[in-house]
Parts: sequence; C-alpha cells; structure tokens
Amino acid sequence: MNVIRKPTTGDVTTGPLPASKKIFVEGTQPGVAVPMREIHVHESAMEAPTVVYDTSGPYTDPDAYIDIEAGLPKLRADWIEARGDTEVYEGREIKPEDNGNVDDEHLVPTFPVQNAPRRATGGKAVTQIAYARQGIVTPEMEFIAIRENMLRERLPEEVLKKAKEGAESFGAEIPDFITPEFVRDEVARGRAVIPNNINHPETEPMIIGRNFLVKINANIGNSAVTSSVAEEVDKMVWSTRWGADTVMDLSTGRNIHNIREWIIRNSPVPIGTVPIYQALEKVDRAEDLTWEIYRDTLIEQAEQGVDYFTIHAGIRLKHIHLTADRVTGIVSRGGSIIAQWCLAHHKESFLYEHFEEICDIMRAYDVSFSLGDGFRPGSSADANDAAQFAELETLGELTKVAWEKDCQVIIEGPGHVPMHKIKVNMEKQLEVCGEAPFYTLGPLVTDIAPGYDHITSGIGAAMIGWYGTAMLCYVTPKEHLGLPDRNDVKEGVITYKIAAHAADVAKGHPGAAARDDALSRARFEFRWEDQFNLGLDPDRARDFHDQTLPKEAHKTAHFCSMCGPKFCAMEITNLVRNYTNDGMQQMAERFQAEGGELYKEEYVDQKAEGEEAPGGDD
Amino acid sequence: MNVIRKPTTGDVTTGPLPASKKIFVEGTQPGVAVPMREIHVHESAMEAPTVVYDTSGPYTDPDAYIDIEAGLPKLRADWIEARGDTEVYEGREIKPEDNGNVDDEHLVPTFPVQNAPRRATGGKAVTQIAYARQGIVTPEMEFIAIRENMLRERLPEEVLKKAKEGAESFGAEIPDFITPEFVRDEVARGRAVIPNNINHPETEPMIIGRNFLVKINANIGNSAVTSSVAEEVDKMVWSTRWGADTVMDLSTGRNIHNIREWIIRNSPVPIGTVPIYQALEKVDRAEDLTWEIYRDTLIEQAEQGVDYFTIHAGIRLKHIHLTADRVTGIVSRGGSIIAQWCLAHHKESFLYEHFEEICDIMRAYDVSFSLGDGFRPGSSADANDAAQFAELETLGELTKVAWEKDCQVIIEGPGHVPMHKIKVNMEKQLEVCGEAPFYTLGPLVTDIAPGYDHITSGIGAAMIGWYGTAMLCYVTPKEHLGLPDRNDVKEGVITYKIAAHAADVAKGHPGAAARDDALSRARFEFRWEDQFNLGLDPDRARDFHDQTLPKEAHKTAHFCSMCGPKFCAMEITNLVRNYTNDGMQQMAERFQAEGGELYKEEYVDQKAEGEEAPGGDD
Repeated sequence: MNVIRKPTTGDVTTGPLPASKKIFVEGTQPGVAVPMREIHVHESAMEAPTVVYDTSGPYTDPDAYIDIEAGLPKLRADWIEARGDTEVYEGREIKPEDNGNVDDEHLVPTFPVQNAPRRATGGKAVTQIAYARQGIVTPEMEFIAIRENMLRERLPEEVLKKAKEGAESFGAEIPDFITPEFVRDEVARGRAVIPNNINHPETEPMIIGRNFLVKINANIGNSAVTSSVAEEVDKMVWSTRWGADTVMDLSTGRNIHNIREWIIRNSPVPIGTVPIYQALEKVDRAEDLTWEIYRDTLIEQAEQGVDYFTIHAGIRLKHIHLTADRVTGIVSRGGSIIAQWCLAHHKESFLYEHFEEICDIMRAYDVSFSLGDGFRPGSSADANDAAQFAELETLGELTKVAWEKDCQVIIEGPGHVPMHKIKVNMEKQLEVCGEAPFYTLGPLVTDIAPGYDHITSGIGAAMIGWYGTAMLCYVTPKEHLGLPDRNDVKEGVITYKIAAHAADVAKGHPGAAARDDALSRARFEFRWEDQFNLGLDPDRARDFHDQTLPKEAHKTAHFCSMCGPKFCAMEITNLVRNYTNDGMQQMAERFQAEGGELYKEEYVDQKAEGEEAPGGDD
Repeated sequence: MNVIRKPTTGDVTTGPLPASKKIFVEGTQPGVAVPMREIHVHESAMEAPTVVYDTSGPYTDPDAYIDIEAGLPKLRADWIEARGDTEVYEGREIKPEDNGNVDDEHLVPTFPVQNAPRRATGGKAVTQIAYARQGIVTPEMEFIAIRENMLRERLPEEVLKKAKEGAESFGAEIPDFITPEFVRDEVARGRAVIPNNINHPETEPMIIGRNFLVKINANIGNSAVTSSVAEEVDKMVWSTRWGADTVMDLSTGRNIHNIREWIIRNSPVPIGTVPIYQALEKVDRAEDLTWEIYRDTLIEQAEQGVDYFTIHAGIRLKHIHLTADRVTGIVSRGGSIIAQWCLAHHKESFLYEHFEEICDIMRAYDVSFSLGDGFRPGSSADANDAAQFAELETLGELTKVAWEKDCQVIIEGPGHVPMHKIKVNMEKQLEVCGEAPFYTLGPLVTDIAPGYDHITSGIGAAMIGWYGTAMLCYVTPKEHLGLPDRNDVKEGVITYKIAAHAADVAKGHPGAAARDDALSRARFEFRWEDQFNLGLDPDRARDFHDQTLPKEAHKTAHFCSMCGPKFCAMEITNLVRNYTNDGMQQMAERFQAEGGELYKEEYVDQKAEGEEAPGGDD
C-alpha cells in the first residue's frame, strides 16, 4: 500500500499573469509556433502591448488543458521523428536501486504514462551541433530565432539605436535581428547550446550563448525530510512561471527516478541533473562507484529525457593537492565525490578516463555537457586560485574532445568571487574553453551575508552576465543554510531575472530596454496597474502599494505615497514640457493666472478624507 | 489634550547582537574612546574575535543606560566647547508652522529636555574643514582614524597583503593604516567630509570619503497616515543597529519639527534632511516659497543639530528645458519643487542666488552640504543625459564656492543608471566636482522590478561604490510603491551593507576581507553558530537554518542540509590535507584499511532518527 499520493494538477499554479496574453508566432517549418507574453497597458497610454520572453509553457495559457498525470504535449516529437535518425527501443529496465531501494509504502508512484525511449541509430550524433555543422537549420533553431527576437521588428528604429549608445558587450556580437541561420552558425561553432534531449520532446526550444539573451537556471531537489513529489513538481512549474529558463533537479536520497519522471514529463524547459548524485545513492560509499554504475545511470537519465548533465570530468588526480591550503577546500558536492574516489583509488576518475564513451552516450540522445567545476571556490579567499584555473584548463581540453564528437558543451563556473576578480574569470574561460558558453553560480561577491546570498550573488551574476556568461544559476536566500521553499525559489528566480536583464541592457541587446521604457512611462504617467503588470512580479508590486495606499481609487490616483497628494514631483514635468513648447515667460504668466496649482480637485477631496502626504523621497 | 503618546525606551530595540561585545579603543585626546564590536567565535576555533565597525551607538551596549526621553549622552560637547569659537544663544523661537500648524490634540509632544543652541562667534567657520586647513587634528579626526582602522594592526601581515592582490581602486588611495593626520589631510582637501553639527554633540564621529570605508545612509520619514513618532525613532535606532552610517529624516506633513527633535537627540549617527520639504509645508504652493522662509528653516534645523542638508542649488533656469524630452522628466521631489518655483517666477532659484549666504549659515554650525541632484534620472532611459550632467557641472562650481567658505560638501548622484553607464557617471563626478565625495542613490540598473528595487539598486550600488562613491543611499523593497516599514528598513540596510562591503573588498581595503575569511572558516568547520554570528544578520541566518534542520544538535553537526549526513563535501578536504601531508599512496592504503568512511557514527545515528539527505547543491 502506497502512502505517497500522486501529484495532481491542483498542486501547480496555472493561469495567465495579470494583463497578460499568450500569443504564438509562427515560423516557416511545420509546427513552429513560438509562445510569447504580451503585457497589455491601459488604453489611455495608446501603446502597443509589451512583448516579453515566456518560459512558463502551457501553464499560463488559459486555452491549454493541463493534466499533470498525463504530462505536457510533445511539441517536438514530430520534428525528432522526421529527422529519421533515431529509433524507439525497449530501454533499460527500472531497478529498485534507481529509487534508492525504497519499500513499496514509501515509493513515489510511477508516472502513469509509460514512454519507450528513443536513441540514435547506427552510432550517429543526433545533436543540434551535428545538424548545425551539416548546414541544417532545424525547427528548433527557427523556433529559437523567433523566440530571441521577441517581435523586435515591432519596435521603433530609435529604440534599437538607443540600445547601443555607450553599450559595452566585451566581445559579444549580438546582431540586430536573429536569423535561424545565425542560430545555426552559433551552435555549429560551439558558442551556443540548445539543450534538448530527444526523449524530452515536451520542451520549448531555448538557447544558451552569449550572443543571445542571458538565461537563468533554478535548482530544485527533493528531500525525504522536507518535501514531497508534489512540492517538487510545483517548484518546477512555479520557477518557470517567474522566468526560469532551465531547471536543475538536484535530488538526492530515495525516489530519485520516479520524482524526476514526474518533473520531466511536465516540464516545458530543459532539465539538468548531476548524475553522480544518483550514482552515489546506488552504492554505500563514494569509492565504491564504478564506471559501470555511472554509465548505467547516464543511460537511465538519458532515456528519461534529462537535457544536460553536470559532469565533473575536469578533476585530475594531480590537481587535487592544489585545494589543500584553501580556506574552504572543495565545496562542490560532485567535485568532492570524485576527489574522494580519486584519492581512495589513487587513479584518474572514471569520468576523465571514459570521457569519450560518455560523449558517445551524450550524442546518441543529444544530452548536453555541463562540464562541472568541482574545484569552484567556496569563499572569496579561494577565488581564481591555482586549483580553480587548473580545472578550467582541463575543461577546455575536454570541450575540444566533446566537440570532436559532435556533442554540445557548456562550462560551469564559480561560486564565490569578489568583484575585482570576476572579469578575470570570464576572460580566462573564454580563452581556454574556445568560447563555449559559460554557466556560473552567482558569483557571490562577499561571504558575510548568509540569509541574503541571492543578493550577494545577484550582484556578481549581473556583472559576469554583462562580461559574457550565457546562463546564470540562481542562488536563493537559503543558500548555505537550508533547502529553498516555494517563496525562496521565487525570490531567487526574480533576483536572477534582474541580473540577466541588467546584463542584456548593458550589453546593448537590441530591444531589451523596451520593457524598462514601457514601465517607466507607466510609472511617470501614474498608470499604477500598468507599472505593476509590466514588472517582474506584479503580485508583489500590487501588494506593496496596497500596504501604504490600499484604496482601489489610489490605483488611478495621480500621486504616490512618496510625495503625496499635496505635491507631485512627476506632475511638474508636464509643466516643463508645456513651457518648452510655449515659451517660458508666457507659460509663467498663464500658470500664475490659473492659480498655479498642480494638484487637482479630486486629490484635495482625497486629502480631506484623511489621506495626507506621507514621507518623502528626495 | 494631546492624543499622541511620547516615544519611550521600550519602543526601540536594545541589547547586543549575538556573541558580540562592545569594546572601546582609546585615543590620545581627552574623551576619545571609539566603540567597536567584537564577534566572538567558539573556543575550538582558537581564533581572536573578529572586530567590526559599529554604528549602533549605546543601544547595543548592555552597560549603557538608555532613556529616549533624555536623549543620548553628549559625547562631543566638551570638544566643541573647548575649541572656544562658539557661543550658546537663545535661538529661534519655535513657531506653530514648524509643525504644520497642527492643533494641540495632534501635536507630537515636545522633547522633554530643552537645549539652547550653539553657533560660531564672530562669523567664524567652525567646520572640520576649517580646522583641517589650519592644521588642527580635532578629537573627531582622531576618533575617526581609530574607527576606520578597526584594530587592523591585530591582523596578520598576510591578510593585509592578500587584500591588495588583483584589487583595483580606480584612483582611490587607501593607506595601509589610517592616521589622524591622514584624516585631517583628506578633510582639508575636501575629499572627505565629517558631518557633525555642533548642535548634535551626541554623534559618534564618522567620515565620508573614497579613501575610507564605503558608508551607507538609510532614509526614514514620518507620515501622518502611516507612522507615529515612536515608529520613526525606532526606525532610526533599528537602521543603525544593522549598519546605517547616517540617517536622513525625509518627513513631510505635520509635526516635522518635533519628530526631528526626538530623532536627533537619540541618534548616534549624523542626521540629514532636505530642508525644502519643511519649507514647503510652511506655504501653500511651491511658488510661494521665499528666501526668507527657506533661510528661517535652515536656521531652525541647524539649531536642532541636523548634520547635513540636501540643497538642490544646482538647478539652473536655463537647464530646466533639458528635461522636457525625458521619459520620466524630473523625479526628484526637491528638484521639482525648485523647478516649479523657477518656472513660475522665471528666475534663478533662491538657492542658487543666495548660495553664499547659505554657506555662511552652514559654516556657523558645521552643517555639511549635500548638493542635491534635482535632475537625477528617474529611469534608465534618462541616465547620463544633458540635464543630469549640466546640473552636475553646476554642482562642481558650487562646490568650489562652498570650499572657499570653509564648508564641507558631498555631491548627490543618481538614481536609475544601467550598468554600462555607471562608470561614466563616477568619472564625470570626480572630474567636475574636484573629488568631493559622491553620495549616490543606488543606482538602479533596471526599471523592471518594482518590489525588488533594493536588489536592482544594490547591484548598481556595489559597482559605483567600487568605482569611488563614498556613501550609498539605500533603497528599500518599497521604493516606487510605498513607505518602508521596519522590515523594509532592515532589508534595505543589509542589502547596502553587502554592496558597501563588496566595494571595500574590491578596492583592496586592507582588512575588509578579514570578516569574509573568518565566516568562511566557520562555515567550513561547521561552526554553525559562528557562521550565523559573523554574518550581517545572525537572526535571519539562524532562522533559515532552523527551518530545515531545527534541532539544537544540528547547530554542532558536521553536515548541512545541502549534502546531508551521508556525504559531506567539506569533510573531504580534511582528507585531501592529510593526503598532501602524508603522500598520496600511503594515505590511500590507510583510508581503505580504516574502512574508507568519511561520515562518523553519530551521523548514522541521526540518520536512523529519520534525518535523511536532503536535496543537493552541485
């Protein structure tokens, strides 16, 4: 008798964001229909809706039928099949150890729908990089080109022009308009990655590369103590609602296999994992791990549809001693598992030794490498040290091997890095890894704020994103202290959306600042609802406004709680504009003649009701 | 009959922070005893306590007697009197309009203790810059030298050396050791400011300048709608508890005078205001303001002890039209009051016209100028535009006038600035304002996150602090939406402490990273309590840890919720260290012989109690 209930559709948040409408932009290839979110503003603004990137999948589409027990529609299934280079096969049998040998009572229910896996035929590479190098523009690539443009062609010319003023991209080359051919070219060069396992056809294709929008990843992960399978599926849906471009499932403990299946089948974004975590659960001790157990775990997860694997193959036996004098030694969980194995056996790891065989698995499913930084610094003091850079150089060598095998590769980066050492990190990565996309955790710019590490790392993330990192792995307020709950996940995602967007703007990404401008216009014109809705978190913005000025009428009031109704800083600008148009002296006379009042009758009424000017803002 | 109750000592938070002890380091001049906070760690660490800068005044001193109705002890009174260049006089009579003509029932009770004000005799300048230029090292300067060093001489040589590795200070010249003579020299050059009105002798002297630690300011301010006098006094105490170096009282509405008195008499940090706010409350409309009303307000506040005034004297009539085509026009409240006045009268403002007379007032009390940026950008789109830079150039001209008058000056800066335009801002300010300290609000690096503007601005603040800003004005999560409550104040202060500290570290400030290192060692050695206590917010860190692992035993456990008891990333480093010492092969054998287990008996016991490995951290 199973005591763990199945997740149901009621466990996840569905429905559109405020004032938002999902639209689909069609491409030329069959089935290419790219979802975007239009945010509509008040008609008084006489403005077209602002179009924003939409990671949330069908969950925010009121026309979509959501059934967690059936999984999402298989958007890419026809594209994959049409390529004719893969076969459906029986696949590996699920073993009790895949779920940590948990007894029936504590077993997470298996996902109701069984899918036979698919793999490449005849040892072919069925990766996007392989197609790109053959000159093929896949439907995925066209989808991505449309998605990255975000209907940029709708924007006035001067917006695109202004985006470049004073911008600094540190060598990134973002075109004015992304074509499918540009996507193909970037993927072929290894400068961008499209993580989409052929066994995860539910994904909406996305790209990771520094000539595209900066992406963010959210980590989730179950714990027998603190969360249920329903909670983890909800965290995945919740994080994509707020903007997570990919999600890593870092589960440990029991039920790993079954929980992952629920997550993948319902995920519209690529899913990443660290396979060594599950492999470790299958043995007693790190040093009992073998290539065979690890390999079997890779196959297990590749068949399920994991889109990218963190693999700590850059740890070399000869470099481990470089961590000995660190303040915080080895802090990467995966890295320390491998280091322990290497030390116990006094050998190079099976990841390093069998790297080409791993490539053969990756290319048969199109699982992307995320080469892990097992020696990433765990404190400012250890940043950019010999251990970190020695591993990074090894990752550069492995990148070339993977590329030879037509595999897609991204490189993981730190960690804890004070501001003055961030740029060096980025430059070193570009140099030794042949411009393979960088995927960094933060970095945290100081160690002194446990409980606020979304902020210490958000600072570093914005900077390294500007310098060239293609994807930012979020950090939540619980980092170093505990497991993130739903609120922490949202706080982490929004913080990283800020960092990624700030980086896009600073790089001069055409069109990125259009949302800033739309929101600022709404703010300036006292379109409160528009200001809330154009923001990253309309719910919180509305709630905060309500805390000071709760009345519904205040949502249309031409004042805010900063200056209050008696005087309004923003109203003065209308006066300035009129002056400029009409000539200064004339206006001065007219203004005086009209009584020189900037606030209008209705505000005086509101004031009479007891609303007085609250505290000011300089 | 008065219905507003007096604030009482029970309204404010007192008592030391966890594991913290207030110490006093004595100087050579009488009465110089500089408070610092020692954070003590567990004896197993065998480490000296970490010494941190302490802005909290007597409130965190268990030996101090706190009485809100009496105010703080007058630490500097003897120093001021001993200089023999000031006189006590009767002072300006308090008028009903000073409190907005509020009726008796709604009048905030006057502060119980009346003090006669003090001013310079014979038109002298009693400013720190005047003394500095005369070659006098004041007790304030010695106090500051000791305070800035934070017992740096206790740190090992290699910590100071390491601080400079790869550091970039962008022209700042931070000496290894701050001498009183260095403080004097920086103040004499106008490159640093000591805001301390002779009528606010309760302050513990502090300095604002880019060759010193980066400082932060917290804004508070009453509103008849949303907060009481007790709340505002508490916000002041609360913000200094978490690290605010100065506090600005941005009150508007009624009771401004009486509330400010309660705040100043109880504040251990300098208090800033924007006098035009109160002046506006004394008239009906901005254009009714006169030099006489404004001048009277300056005297009123100078006699109370306000330490610095924001004065928007940089707004020139001829520049106002430059804001006409902006996305968000004029958003500074003070700036728009002045702009409205200028337009209505078609004249230069009385601030600009009477600037020298303002200087004469400032120097008679040692009120520092904070020259306001009335044209600061209210959106990314308006950053670094002609209006902003025209005003900045005027501020540079006024700085020279004020310096001629022996007045102290800081310059206010934006606002909303995308990352790629921040450095230009800083460089321009240094260039046109003769290195007078820059004091910036944020800047916010994107406009799209209302509800999270402590974060959008914390990113910009860390960067501009690194580039050379001397003081960062905080932004709370409520920015643009409402008035900050107590929680928002704390969130804003901690975010800005992160930004300021990150900037100090990146500038290579000797000793700044010592706290990072101490906390990282505690983290690595699983000294959980030490990790909490060395952080900026021990309360939140402990609370977050409790949410995942609530048991008291976990506070000493050699594992955390990231990896759990089965495997610990950090434990592996001890193994690595042993390997490095003993030779790799020998250790491999010994490790295997001992059973090769890294986790110990007690964790297995805890696991048996139901504590399993929670979700992992890559």
